[in-house]
Amino acid sequence: MHAAEDLELVAAVDKDDPLEALASAEVVVDFTHPDVVMGNLEWCIGHGIHPVVGTTGFDAARLETVRGWLAANPGTNALIAPNFGIAAVLMMHFAQQAAKYFESAEIVELHHPNKADAPSGTARRTAELIAEARTKAGLGPSPDATTSELAGARGASVDGVHVHAVRLAGLVAHQEVILGGDGEILTIRHDTMNRSSFTPGVLLGVRRIQGLDGLTVGLDRLLDL
Amino acid sequence: MHAAEDLELVAAVDKDDPLEALASAEVVVDFTHPDVVMGNLEWCIGHGIHPVVGTTGFDAARLETVRGWLAANPGTNALIAPNFGIAAVLMMHFAQQAAKYFESAEIVELHHPNKADAPSGTARRTAELIAEARTKAGLGPSPDATTSELAGARGASVDGVHVHAVRLAGLVAHQEVILGGDGEILTIRHDTMNRSSFTPGVLLGVRRIQGLDGLTVGLDRLLDL
Amino acid sequence: MHAAEDLELVAAVDKDDPLEALASAEVVVDFTHPDVVMGNLEWCIGHGIHPVVGTTGFDAARLETVRGWLAANPGTNALIAPNFGIAAVLMMHFAQQAAKYFESAEIVELHHPNKADAPSGTARRTAELIAEARTKAGLGPSPDATTSELAGARGASVDGVHVHAVRLAGLVAHQEVILGGDGEILTIRHDTMNRSSFTPGVLLGVRRIQGLDGLTVGLDRLLDL
Amino acid sequence: MHAAEDLELVAAVDKDDPLEALASAEVVVDFTHPDVVMGNLEWCIGHGIHPVVGTTGFDAARLETVRGWLAANPGTNALIAPNFGIAAVLMMHFAQQAAKYFESAEIVELHHPNKADAPSGTARRTAELIAEARTKAGLGPSPDATTSELAGARGASVDGVHVHAVRLAGLVAHQEVILGGDGEILTIRHDTMNRSSFTPGVLLGVRRIQGLDGLTVGLDRLLDL
Repeated sequence: MHAAEDLELVAAVDKDDPLEALASAEVVVDFTHPDVVMGNLEWCIGHGIHPVVGTTGFDAARLETVRGWLAANPGTNALIAPNFGIAAVLMMHFAQQAAKYFESAEIVELHHPNKADAPSGTARRTAELIAEARTKAGLGPSPDATTSELAGARGASVDGVHVHAVRLAGLVAHQEVILGGDGEILTIRHDTMNRSSFTPGVLLGVRRIQGLDGLTVGLDRLLDL
Repeated sequence: MHAAEDLELVAAVDKDDPLEALASAEVVVDFTHPDVVMGNLEWCIGHGIHPVVGTTGFDAARLETVRGWLAANPGTNALIAPNFGIAAVLMMHFAQQAAKYFESAEIVELHHPNKADAPSGTARRTAELIAEARTKAGLGPSPDATTSELAGARGASVDGVHVHAVRLAGLVAHQEVILGGDGEILTIRHDTMNRSSFTPGVLLGVRRIQGLDGLTVGLDRLLDL
Repeated sequence: MHAAEDLELVAAVDKDDPLEALASAEVVVDFTHPDVVMGNLEWCIGHGIHPVVGTTGFDAARLETVRGWLAANPGTNALIAPNFGIAAVLMMHFAQQAAKYFESAEIVELHHPNKADAPSGTARRTAELIAEARTKAGLGPSPDATTSELAGARGASVDGVHVHAVRLAGLVAHQEVILGGDGEILTIRHDTMNRSSFTPGVLLGVRRIQGLDGLTVGLDRLLDL
Repeated sequence: MHAAEDLELVAAVDKDDPLEALASAEVVVDFTHPDVVMGNLEWCIGHGIHPVVGTTGFDAARLETVRGWLAANPGTNALIAPNFGIAAVLMMHFAQQAAKYFESAEIVELHHPNKADAPSGTARRTAELIAEARTKAGLGPSPDATTSELAGARGASVDGVHVHAVRLAGLVAHQEVILGGDGEILTIRHDTMNRSSFTPGVLLGVRRIQGLDGLTVGLDRLLDL
């Protein structure tokens, strides 16, 4: 991020540092922990600083609380995004847009073997979006004549969409959405090769946050799609 | 197409049959030849029949002529699309939308070995759309430090976008758009497994053409994207 | 097969035709049904005709019976192969050879939605071969830190190798073996685009069977690997 | 490499350090520069230390010189390998083995945009191996009906095998060998995600070098294929 010439790094604060070091910032990027992020946001918003937040753990109640703080501090905006990888966000968006045109949809996500949850949060969310789009278009379940299954072979079902999770040494974070119909297949895949993949999305958030209006959830709202 | 219950096949006309057999049709699907398609369209439009056209060879002059016929026959519409494969059309659309978010973009298309042109028309068109999107977003050329190249290794350049054409026994028609940035890759791929891949797109055209307004070029206009 | 200039088609026999039409053949290709294949083989071997067999359903007992018939008819050979697709057979062979060099191995197979079993027989067999190779090399289970799994997400386990089965309209028959280690991945994939994919393997069997010795099980024995 | 419990790191020598620090080593790993590697090898072999060499730039003359040094120091062995990535080495080996069974073969290699040469050395070598295997099997050129080509679209030709080089931000080092025949495709792909991919191959070399005989060129000689 140090290489973005139009931005200036005012301060970098680690977990035991006082937040006051951030007082002169216009924007604060928060990739911390669910336990401390709410305190950080209250302080930032109270000081008129726009937070760009990649920390996880935001449910409806927490979002409502943030909305309250923003209402009390007009002119201050917040961006909270579960995923700052632009490729991953586009993959989800395109999957949702394309889903209604295909008889079948499945997801294969592939991650390093140290990941605790299967499927990934991104895969679950993608499946939900695809399921929503299919329902809205009046599509029933994807065709599947399986009558003899070795337990688990057909993957997990998320709202009726089959999701498969591969865990493999050497991988980082990857996902493939496969949509199929009459004689044709559309595949949308994202590969995250390392953590720097979040940088462009965070920079986009930092550059755009002043033009937003109050709370924005999800990086896709900043992409002109 | 015989299996679409909401549609009725009125007539199927081969190249030596008289067009009069089509007189009671509401919609005519024309997958013929550049040499005869203009005659077919004039006749159909003159009879108030909506043509759905997959025949190639439409340049600006021909489209203008069709527009003239439609203006003289209000209430009649025409859909002319170079590609009725929904997966291929979505691939092009998504590639165009995503292009501005990535430093690099290249295309690999893969076809059966009997294809005469390289790259394919679809790959050329995709490259043009990506190039347009990059220019509009102020992106320069994709980074490339190649100083020692075996002739052809880096592919063809279409408006600055590198395009590679694979020709291989066993393949049908496939294309991969690869977009890359800081530590992440987005790949959009379509696979055509056989000619039935055009059916859903043609049916979509037949079902929607009465609601269109005059001339529509490209299937993407019928997809709610 | 009619296009193989070094071979002559003597007869084509359907299920209600008498086998006598085959009496002048040197080789018979049997793609019939488990219910009738044993009768066919007994007749062919008894007449000194070499059978090349793609019919499924051969267990140890059936193979032993065939061996007995061949022993009683010296100079007659039989080739029985569960898969005549050369790409599929090579995929299995390479997967087995490579398995011991990688910490992790998983299989993703993808088929048309009319398939009854999941995973496919080919995927099961590949997993068994990989598991054997890993055991022989002293490798334990592939690393996997999953602690929270939505049922089925991690696929089926075949001898400890995770296997995922995708069922999707538009697909034919495809399989990917993914092997991963320290910072590197090896993927071996086969795509069957249509049934003609069996032709080269069957022709190879027909051309080589006279040089075999008694019963040969598996096309891989005919590939010089 | 520090994590291999059966091996002990005696010394790590940088470019300005004296080689004497290595005197008590049994094996020396040399990833240096073509300008200095010959001096290093002469010193190591003269001291009865087995060198495992990943440095590039070995031509026939250099290999002959090394053979001379080894002949003068019986019991000392050297391993010189252009590529220590096991996945890459297996990909090349399998491509060579499979090539004769397929009508068509092409290579797509994909690298980060800072690479100077196109195609990569690995892709060139793979193409040469495939070409050799095809010639030996009596196969002519892959079928290709291209009559209208935008310059470069069909890639570079290495001994008649088409090779395509993609350069893209976000990529590391990847290669795909695509083999195709009647209705089927075999794809062999390796992905290098980071430089640690060389570690297992180097460790394999270090562990096996004492059992080798004089000069060994290529890691594939140490894989039981």
